[in-house]
Amino acid sequence: MLSRLVLRRVVGRYVGGTASVGGSVRSTHHQNHQQGEAKDYTQQKWWSAATILGAGAGAAFWLSYNYHAEAASSLTVGEKEEEGFGAYRSGLPEYTLDEVARHTTIKERIWMAYRHGVYDVTEFIAEHPGGDKIMMGAGGSVEPFWALYAVHKNPHVLNIFETYRIGNLAAADVGTSVSDMSDPYGKEPRRHVALKPSSRKPFNAEPPLPLLADSLITPNELFYVRNHLPVPDVDAASYELELNDELSNNEKTLTLQDIRKYPKHTITATIMCAGNRRSEMTKVKGVKGLSWGQAAIGNATWSGARLCDVLKDLGVEDGKTDALHVQFEGLDTDPASMPYGASIPIEKALDSHGDVILAYEMNGEPIPRDHGYPVRVVVPGVVGARNVKWLGRIIVSKNESDAHWQQNDYKGFAPNVDWDTVDFKKSPAIQELPVISAVCEPLEGDQVEVKEGKIKVRGYAWSGGGRKIVRVDVSSDGGHTWQATDTLESDSSRHPHAWGWTLWTTEVPVGKGAKTGSEVELCVKAVDSQYNTQPENFANIWNLRGVLANAYHRVQVKLKF
Amino acid sequence: MLSRLVLRRVVGRYVGGTASVGGSVRSTHHQNHQQGEAKDYTQQKWWSAATILGAGAGAAFWLSYNYHAEAASSLTVGEKEEEGFGAYRSGLPEYTLDEVARHTTIKERIWMAYRHGVYDVTEFIAEHPGGDKIMMGAGGSVEPFWALYAVHKNPHVLNIFETYRIGNLAAADVGTSVSDMSDPYGKEPRRHVALKPSSRKPFNAEPPLPLLADSLITPNELFYVRNHLPVPDVDAASYELELNDELSNNEKTLTLQDIRKYPKHTITATIMCAGNRRSEMTKVKGVKGLSWGQAAIGNATWSGARLCDVLKDLGVEDGKTDALHVQFEGLDTDPASMPYGASIPIEKALDSHGDVILAYEMNGEPIPRDHGYPVRVVVPGVVGARNVKWLGRIIVSKNESDAHWQQNDYKGFAPNVDWDTVDFKKSPAIQELPVISAVCEPLEGDQVEVKEGKIKVRGYAWSGGGRKIVRVDVSSDGGHTWQATDTLESDSSRHPHAWGWTLWTTEVPVGKGAKTGSEVELCVKAVDSQYNTQPENFANIWNLRGVLANAYHRVQVKLKF
Repeated sequence: MLSRLVLRRVVGRYVGGTASVGGSVRSTHHQNHQQGEAKDYTQQKWWSAATILGAGAGAAFWLSYNYHAEAASSLTVGEKEEEGFGAYRSGLPEYTLDEVARHTTIKERIWMAYRHGVYDVTEFIAEHPGGDKIMMGAGGSVEPFWALYAVHKNPHVLNIFETYRIGNLAAADVGTSVSDMSDPYGKEPRRHVALKPSSRKPFNAEPPLPLLADSLITPNELFYVRNHLPVPDVDAASYELELNDELSNNEKTLTLQDIRKYPKHTITATIMCAGNRRSEMTKVKGVKGLSWGQAAIGNATWSGARLCDVLKDLGVEDGKTDALHVQFEGLDTDPASMPYGASIPIEKALDSHGDVILAYEMNGEPIPRDHGYPVRVVVPGVVGARNVKWLGRIIVSKNESDAHWQQNDYKGFAPNVDWDTVDFKKSPAIQELPVISAVCEPLEGDQVEVKEGKIKVRGYAWSGGGRKIVRVDVSSDGGHTWQATDTLESDSSRHPHAWGWTLWTTEVPVGKGAKTGSEVELCVKAVDSQYNTQPENFANIWNLRGVLANAYHRVQVKLKF
Repeated sequence: MLSRLVLRRVVGRYVGGTASVGGSVRSTHHQNHQQGEAKDYTQQKWWSAATILGAGAGAAFWLSYNYHAEAASSLTVGEKEEEGFGAYRSGLPEYTLDEVARHTTIKERIWMAYRHGVYDVTEFIAEHPGGDKIMMGAGGSVEPFWALYAVHKNPHVLNIFETYRIGNLAAADVGTSVSDMSDPYGKEPRRHVALKPSSRKPFNAEPPLPLLADSLITPNELFYVRNHLPVPDVDAASYELELNDELSNNEKTLTLQDIRKYPKHTITATIMCAGNRRSEMTKVKGVKGLSWGQAAIGNATWSGARLCDVLKDLGVEDGKTDALHVQFEGLDTDPASMPYGASIPIEKALDSHGDVILAYEMNGEPIPRDHGYPVRVVVPGVVGARNVKWLGRIIVSKNESDAHWQQNDYKGFAPNVDWDTVDFKKSPAIQELPVISAVCEPLEGDQVEVKEGKIKVRGYAWSGGGRKIVRVDVSSDGGHTWQATDTLESDSSRHPHAWGWTLWTTEVPVGKGAKTGSEVELCVKAVDSQYNTQPENFANIWNLRGVLANAYHRVQVKLKF
């Protein structure tokens, strides 16, 4: 179902820091860059995903030379060698991450952290070969970005970076890029500054959109965060998961160690918030909800025990139970101590190919606190709201969860239904999400370079229910003419178990007569393996909660010849 | 998964002829009808499906009183009593069905057949309480219609009908409503005259659209027919199904008796042609293919052996094979003796909940010749083209079928791809179909009565892949405003194993200021349990083969106050 090998190499690319580079290759590459020469990103299938890692406008050529220099192992930066950079240096002042975070503009100076070091890179901004992208790291740690654009981890770059060193990072902040805050939400983890919050308490945030198209796997620190309540502070050593079958009255309690004893199952799955792209729908008419852009979605590998294996030991098996739902409760609670809750249909829970897992790892690491540490149920193909984090209880039942989020939220309605007429009982809880796509680059309002009559467009596409993306059509004239994209990148899983998204890239022609300053509307629509496609506009799918916002993504850009 | 009891009652309603009626109730009903009183069709859930059987404009009140008179058993027409009607009567001339078929206009006289009788009902047409619908039976047998509208089978109606008797039906035609024809297609079954052919050789035809919304189960004789080649004349006694696993080289041959030995599995499943509604798409720009209306779809119960049970005995099991596809060959062949062929992914074939069956019964009867006698593979949720009829061979393989219909047909493409640029290898074969819906009544151009500011609209909705219809939105102003329909009727199966369609009924308000003669555009769009919905227009989903034509169905009608 999943090409583990490809995945490990891609993940290893940014997690392991084993990038290989060479100075001579770099200069070759610079030449390519100056000539604006197009490279073949798809020729070597093994590395196509890795190429996407660096397909960002500026970062592309950095990673590209890295890729071409693969064989030059003598120039590799090994883990030991890397340790020399960003090490503690005595005699320098100490700064906390909070202090670093106050330096995000040219006026305030641009500070960044890397391992034990604090750097003032203000003077380097204009020199950065990757262009403006460097500003996403302003006031925070560069580590998640360098994981994504592994080319930075070479002696040449690290030496240059070290010349901007101004201090040491406070010991408590090293390696976390985060720290605790005070107040009722006092035990929240620190988040990376690149995550743009739509709400702080509870914390909800999405990464910059172009980043998403840079990597088939979204790094943990840049994965959108959608919390409904304060993040609980769970001690893995004393963690317990309660299980209860309401039909047989069987009960059980599992520790993290117990869960780890089950066969470890790894899947690649996209998780998306039902409200992703809500900010577009709300333009038709106001809706209630966080104003998400297009980045409330991410793709990760998740490892853990299969829910069907765990339920089997509780006596709940496919074909041998009258239960209709499996309910989940989180350890996050509201002021009245009511936990977050949700449920999924029994069919999904017990399907041996349904891949529902009690995940304790995200992208090969313990699940970060914002994503459910120590255990999150991952229900692939199903809306994020059912992928309950900080999982505390599983209840096998004839009934759906009676939690607010299952009963009176996360449901779709016809456009004529508004808050004065809505009856939440009349619609089913959203489970599998419909097909969706977005342009990640260029962004709205960007000026885009036209080369040989074409502009480069890239983004993501995904469908719930294990449906695989089979085609992505792009238009540069507001939807009058379309062409299928050239390249679709995904893991190798097949319908109906294709849980991960697809990244796409294409070059679309612009109309004749266009000139510098001409405005064009880019549109994208995806087709999944059930040949479902997206609705054209938001007006006819408008709903009061602003969920299921999967109309064509339309982006206005200006051309530059 | 399926409410068998409901279904049996519904099916029994038109198959068994056990309808109960009463004259006094009838007159009560007439009163209701004259007063235009609205009836509650949904109050008694047990009978809601049966009510739909008779929800046609004219037929509604016939069946409705039948329904209300359920308890009046003393007035039941038993099977024995029914035998008295339409019996052979000596002294009358004999006519063949071919002769009956020549009488379909007032000028030529309107003839119909019922059991052994031939009737000239010309003078009755204007009297028919069900209105114009009677004309659908002109030139053919009334039996399938009376199965649908069982109210006809009462002594009062049968006595009236017998007064129009003019002859006896030729013995060879009795009970078949069909007979053989000559020429290369000489062994074709006779089809009911109500099926409107889009091609005769091979035979392709669809029933009148309003009939579809009259019954959750589509009667066999009124089920659309989509044949690619001549219908083979298969002798059930000598029928053999060959099985072959290309990976293990295991082979097997099963007789019909062998297939019947497997546990009999019954499902309710909708089958639809990929080209259903093509005639709408072709208005955007010409496409190649039969010009189907909206009735190349039907819903039936299918009984037979589960494919996964049969494959298990061939040594092919879920998780224990490297096969990727299961190929099917029909016994229908082209002039070069090449059989019709198709394949489905191994995941669908081996899924114990996938419900793929080697069906030998359709709606409780041996599968009719046009639908695959004696054995058809039914792949629920999947396009009709993979539901191979007259099944002759099953091949478990690493490869898809190399048949024309799998490789170079039944695929979707972007709108810019035309016959000079198409590369059929670039798109996946259509398997599961996307969500679709249609208005069955009123029809395009109809004049529709407005009652209390509303008009009645009804139709079907369906989605492939076992997705259930959760909402149907209807608009009477071309899609500016929408309301969800009041009533959705389906069997009780749940997502993701909801293979059958949903019938819907609603009363939509018309705009203020509308008057007799005002034209309005009705639109319908459905939402399935994955919350996928339909595209607004055909332009952006246009494809050269005119398949997947699932844009909103738009119907122009005139109002009558």
